[in-house]
Amino acid sequence: MMKTLAHLTFAGLLAAAPAMADPAPVLDPEIRAQAEALMAAGLADDVGLEFTESLTTEIGPRLAGSDAEWRARQWAMIKLKDLNFQQAYIESFNIPYWERVTETASVVGDNPQPLLITALGGSTSTAKGGIDAEIVRFTSLADLKSAPADSLKGKIAFIDEPMVRSQDGSGYGAAVAKRSGCAAAAASAGAEACLIRSVGTDSHRLPHAGGMSREGALGVLPAAALAAPDADQLARLLQRGPVKVHLDIQARTSASAASGNVIAEVEGTSLKDEIVLIGCHLDSWDLGTGAIDDAAGCGIVVAAARLIQALPAKPKRTIRVVLYGSEEVGLFGGKAYAAAHADDLGKHVLAAESDFGAGRIWRLRTGFGEGALPYAEAMQDVLAPLGIIPGNNTATGGSDIGVLGAAGVPIASPDQDGTDYFDLHHTADDTFDKIDPDAFRQNVAAYAALTYLAAETGWDFRKPVEPETIDN
Amino acid sequence: MMKTLAHLTFAGLLAAAPAMADPAPVLDPEIRAQAEALMAAGLADDVGLEFTESLTTEIGPRLAGSDAEWRARQWAMIKLKDLNFQQAYIESFNIPYWERVTETASVVGDNPQPLLITALGGSTSTAKGGIDAEIVRFTSLADLKSAPADSLKGKIAFIDEPMVRSQDGSGYGAAVAKRSGCAAAAASAGAEACLIRSVGTDSHRLPHAGGMSREGALGVLPAAALAAPDADQLARLLQRGPVKVHLDIQARTSASAASGNVIAEVEGTSLKDEIVLIGCHLDSWDLGTGAIDDAAGCGIVVAAARLIQALPAKPKRTIRVVLYGSEEVGLFGGKAYAAAHADDLGKHVLAAESDFGAGRIWRLRTGFGEGALPYAEAMQDVLAPLGIIPGNNTATGGSDIGVLGAAGVPIASPDQDGTDYFDLHHTADDTFDKIDPDAFRQNVAAYAALTYLAAETGWDFRKPVEPETIDN
Ligand SMILES: [Zn+2]
Ligand SMILES: [Zn+2]
Repeated sequence: MMKTLAHLTFAGLLAAAPAMADPAPVLDPEIRAQAEALMAAGLADDVGLEFTESLTTEIGPRLAGSDAEWRARQWAMIKLKDLNFQQAYIESFNIPYWERVTETASVVGDNPQPLLITALGGSTSTAKGGIDAEIVRFTSLADLKSAPADSLKGKIAFIDEPMVRSQDGSGYGAAVAKRSGCAAAAASAGAEACLIRSVGTDSHRLPHAGGMSREGALGVLPAAALAAPDADQLARLLQRGPVKVHLDIQARTSASAASGNVIAEVEGTSLKDEIVLIGCHLDSWDLGTGAIDDAAGCGIVVAAARLIQALPAKPKRTIRVVLYGSEEVGLFGGKAYAAAHADDLGKHVLAAESDFGAGRIWRLRTGFGEGALPYAEAMQDVLAPLGIIPGNNTATGGSDIGVLGAAGVPIASPDQDGTDYFDLHHTADDTFDKIDPDAFRQNVAAYAALTYLAAETGWDFRKPVEPETIDN
Repeated sequence: MMKTLAHLTFAGLLAAAPAMADPAPVLDPEIRAQAEALMAAGLADDVGLEFTESLTTEIGPRLAGSDAEWRARQWAMIKLKDLNFQQAYIESFNIPYWERVTETASVVGDNPQPLLITALGGSTSTAKGGIDAEIVRFTSLADLKSAPADSLKGKIAFIDEPMVRSQDGSGYGAAVAKRSGCAAAAASAGAEACLIRSVGTDSHRLPHAGGMSREGALGVLPAAALAAPDADQLARLLQRGPVKVHLDIQARTSASAASGNVIAEVEGTSLKDEIVLIGCHLDSWDLGTGAIDDAAGCGIVVAAARLIQALPAKPKRTIRVVLYGSEEVGLFGGKAYAAAHADDLGKHVLAAESDFGAGRIWRLRTGFGEGALPYAEAMQDVLAPLGIIPGNNTATGGSDIGVLGAAGVPIASPDQDGTDYFDLHHTADDTFDKIDPDAFRQNVAAYAALTYLAAETGWDFRKPVEPETIDN
């Protein structure tokens, strides 16, 4: 029996709060057993790794809007049909296209030596043959933003801000600001170009690519990322006096290039118009073969869905696997999907996305209606044997499903350990050999169970808090 | 009292053997104390790190025979004078010159994608614009050598042999055979070019450069090393069917380019015509800034000599620091030194060389006359507090002092821990940030003590075994 509110101290209220939520729903023992069987199958799965190996080997790099991304879609259609998905189709859209042609830099003057750089997505071209200009170092984007107008006339701005390593990737948000903001801030101060220390946590001579804008817009200046040791080198040279850099970036653009989302489905039964969406992205940056970003994510969600597809009895709801196109250059696939299915988003009961490498999942967060928290707890309880701890209810969805989350679609976020993710992210080093098969399989297991629970239980993850009946 | 030989069993002989050597010489307590003070100073030394930082930052890559190597010699002369060495001079010589101009490769056909390669030193050029040819994979050089004549007509040989990681670098000898042997063996079987898996122990997209011959001779074919992930990729593609590669290598050569050894001395006193030589090499491969190979080695030996130079009383023998030129492309500096000092080698009482990175020294080996083993033990005893264990007496000298060892000069080999050395060796990743300052300083400490002991004691490291007086 509940006490009346009037009789509760504040501390007592806090202590009582969890008890006010619904008790964890009793998960049907047969559904739980099936989820556990799927986890066991996931831990022994080879389909996901083979899918990832095949994509990274046969297609390799697959820049958004490129021929290679087109080949990846055709490849995916064949693979998904080979894996016996009942439905597989492409939803096409167009994007503005950008590709690097040449990108070289060197220190000129008394200490001549090459620098290893990569142009940022959306970088404009320098004059043919490149430019020579003195660099001016800033330790943060804010620092550059405070440079007076015209103070960088004829100069190259250089933001030398390191990135903080973190398990949950939270160092990225701070570090990526300099990638998006460098060109505009440098231009405001009159600079001719912009260089940044790579957004990454490693110390290899492998610069990190990445777009200058989340909208795929062309930047206002030539802009490139330096490998971390090259940023260190410039900082050391600057301690000795002025440093002049030769920078030659040539990029090719096109107003419109073809892209698309590849979609496969496990058709539901009694609730087949309700969608459980699990996603990843098919495109990659062009320097590596996009293994951890994001062939692995596609291998994980495809393998998870395939395990459910292979069950003798299909779950009630439809499972939709979305291999998004053109994520890297502006989240175009996610936006195209949301636009194409705008009338249908109310039928999307849950969305989850694997796009943070192939490290072990260590936590399950959710973005559910408060009344649906017992369902989160039930899921977390099932996944616990995989070494996954419960997270909070603040998940808003990753890059491609963020737009679904914003439209009210409930989100599940199986959080991967990303401690090493930004050592490889967007570099030439993002290749298949970097994937730990055991960690990968743990992901397949978690996605299979999670997806199955969402599809078979019929739970309403949007569920608002029921008005409490206060006993007073 | 010794037993007669006739009375000894074989096992007894073995057990008695160590006792037959001289007892460890009593090291003059003042000399020992001075060596210990030098070790303490070495562990706190900054000169060596500053020397290494300056060379890798201000000069950067310094390919043998290049302008950059010339600049490195001028830089070194100024540094050595700034460090107050009594003598600093250059001994010049000429070498055949080779440099890379372009090096690109890609898979062509159904799975088009770039490959990351670097031409091997001495590689010939392909036809202008490159060649397209099917690759044939071999798992070892021996495997390629057994290919019948003409069996590789119109093909590219690909040796995909991994390297074994080892603390003492012994995996290198086996792995490097494919680098020296690939072109000739491929040519014998009629191939147009040769690709090897990089001689290295890492999995980064950073191919390892290196010469095709220890004599600097031009190879017989275009030849390049693939980054390890690219070799893996080719192996995976070959499992699916024939693989055609586009290979474009353009190199520039010259019959003669200027190089030289930079030499500094701490002049001895009562035995000043006797030389204790400590060396390193000033040149580097061109992809990185040659930090661990071998700016660190130069920083270590220079700092060690400088600590002795700064003592109020100079040691009896002369200490000669040799910063060899053109090591990487054919050991030219070592050979030039031995030739220039041929009449004088009998006066070289000891030689040691630091050319295996900047890892901690874990062992001291020697190559002394058997009668001088007590001196090895005495040195090992002094160095033990640095975490250095005694090694055997099989040291023959590293690359540049090997020619001295072969001519009878006693060798000391402070063996660095090279477990990670071949992750970086000859790659773009060989940069200053990879050096652990504490490990570096331990090297300075060891070299300072070792060099001082050799210079001050007057010990004869060539000493043959004295004929034993058998008591019978
Ligand atoms: Zn991604
Ligand atoms: Zn070396």
